[in-house]
Amino acid sequence: MRLLRLGTPGQERPAVLDGTGRAYDLSALTNDIDGSFLAEGGPEQVRAELAADTLRPLETGGLRVGAPVARPGKVVCVGLNYRDHAEETGAAIPPRPVVFMKDPGTVVGPYDTVLIPRGSVKTDWEVELAVVIGQRARYLGSPEEALEVIAGYAISNDVSERAFQLELSPQWDLGKSCETFNPLGPWLVTADEIADPQQLGLKLSVNGVPRQDGNSKDMIFGVAYIVWYLSQYLVLEPGDVINTGTPAGVALGLPDTPYLRPGDTVDLSIDGLGSQRQTFAQA
Amino acid sequence: MRLLRLGTPGQERPAVLDGTGRAYDLSALTNDIDGSFLAEGGPEQVRAELAADTLRPLETGGLRVGAPVARPGKVVCVGLNYRDHAEETGAAIPPRPVVFMKDPGTVVGPYDTVLIPRGSVKTDWEVELAVVIGQRARYLGSPEEALEVIAGYAISNDVSERAFQLELSPQWDLGKSCETFNPLGPWLVTADEIADPQQLGLKLSVNGVPRQDGNSKDMIFGVAYIVWYLSQYLVLEPGDVINTGTPAGVALGLPDTPYLRPGDTVDLSIDGLGSQRQTFAQA
Repeated sequence: MRLLRLGTPGQERPAVLDGTGRAYDLSALTNDIDGSFLAEGGPEQVRAELAADTLRPLETGGLRVGAPVARPGKVVCVGLNYRDHAEETGAAIPPRPVVFMKDPGTVVGPYDTVLIPRGSVKTDWEVELAVVIGQRARYLGSPEEALEVIAGYAISNDVSERAFQLELSPQWDLGKSCETFNPLGPWLVTADEIADPQQLGLKLSVNGVPRQDGNSKDMIFGVAYIVWYLSQYLVLEPGDVINTGTPAGVALGLPDTPYLRPGDTVDLSIDGLGSQRQTFAQA
Repeated sequence: MRLLRLGTPGQERPAVLDGTGRAYDLSALTNDIDGSFLAEGGPEQVRAELAADTLRPLETGGLRVGAPVARPGKVVCVGLNYRDHAEETGAAIPPRPVVFMKDPGTVVGPYDTVLIPRGSVKTDWEVELAVVIGQRARYLGSPEEALEVIAGYAISNDVSERAFQLELSPQWDLGKSCETFNPLGPWLVTADEIADPQQLGLKLSVNGVPRQDGNSKDMIFGVAYIVWYLSQYLVLEPGDVINTGTPAGVALGLPDTPYLRPGDTVDLSIDGLGSQRQTFAQA
């Protein structure tokens, strides 16, 4: 099932797509697709109503697509989680997940304009598999248990300013938290539709030039392990987002470091999760 | 003016103390002390009503004190921001603010129990001056301008698990984001009451033993500079919290590294901002 949010920023209305791609309005069921909706059986209710054909069709023409979940309580990221990406950045293969955070206010829609920060000359892309948490999780017993707290998956562009991330201090968060730096969506694809989150192709191109072409099978730490690991240290809440790392092919790792400039267009896709496109502009 | 939130977690009601310490209920004015309240003239309205004596007195006996602002959108921290603390941890004096984040879900009340994470042997304390943002801020023109977006100040205990922070990966967030790791309050003291945020004594003791005794005049980067600096990279939103760093005297820097154990009690105070006390327990 593909959940989504349609409308102007801050005014998105909840919706769902059926198997044919037809949209239905969920406003009668919930105010929003957020942590409460996910934790309190919202997706199951939508599934039942979709099956019973009781939802109101929604004309989506011209409507903006927002991020598929309302502003997350936190966005947790795992860095250097693909062997080839760790290598291209000159970093060692990490023995444990490298965990940092993005300002959750950076989350925007999948086709929204992304701003290149003032003073930036190293704005970079990162296609990532995002995990959306559906149930509160602390001290999970095993990675298998972790799969049960996942509401679903989405595409995330973990936009990064490499000078802010790597040259200002040893802590990465500043270069990961600039305005509009986390396009998410277009859909929250419920976990039941993804047979194996470790068998998903991820692609990203810039102005039509292929740049990233990876597969989640090459993650150093898989989705279930990451969620279990995080739950040993912090509390995951419904609606929280986890960016699970990016494969090789970011500007930082390319010979000519072709960082993003105003006017550049980036296309992202992940198997089963749809596609994103952002045009970059000066902040 | 001292704003506070009283009641059980998630059910706190907004209140204000007058000059004599008498509490008044703000429920008729606002649902909560949050970003919207701060940004939309809430404090000014409270000040007017307090002066006009139109508020309803509130009996506070037995009521829990919550954090003085509702769950922040983000908690940004500046590390190694006191010369003596940088020295005690063996770190160089940073040339720019070292910025990291805590899970905003870690914010709890000033007298709440703090949990020592499972598997932790290095849970540490950090008394800090917290800045609460009152107006949206991006690309502020100067540190002077930055002072205008500050709603007020509070005490923060930036509780830290040093093994999780420093030994698992080079990124600190994991050891800063454990459950209950950010006691805040008791009050949000509005900025007009703090003549100079760089002239505040900060104290912390553990089981009655003095451990930290610093002054915000010894910050490497002052409050106005920090807020201005952050606004060049990320967007500060009303209700966001900034922890501005801790002076020397944390367990990590003491000869016998006396990390916290279940049953330990920590007392914190900052001039003009009141005091906190937490007892630690095993998660």
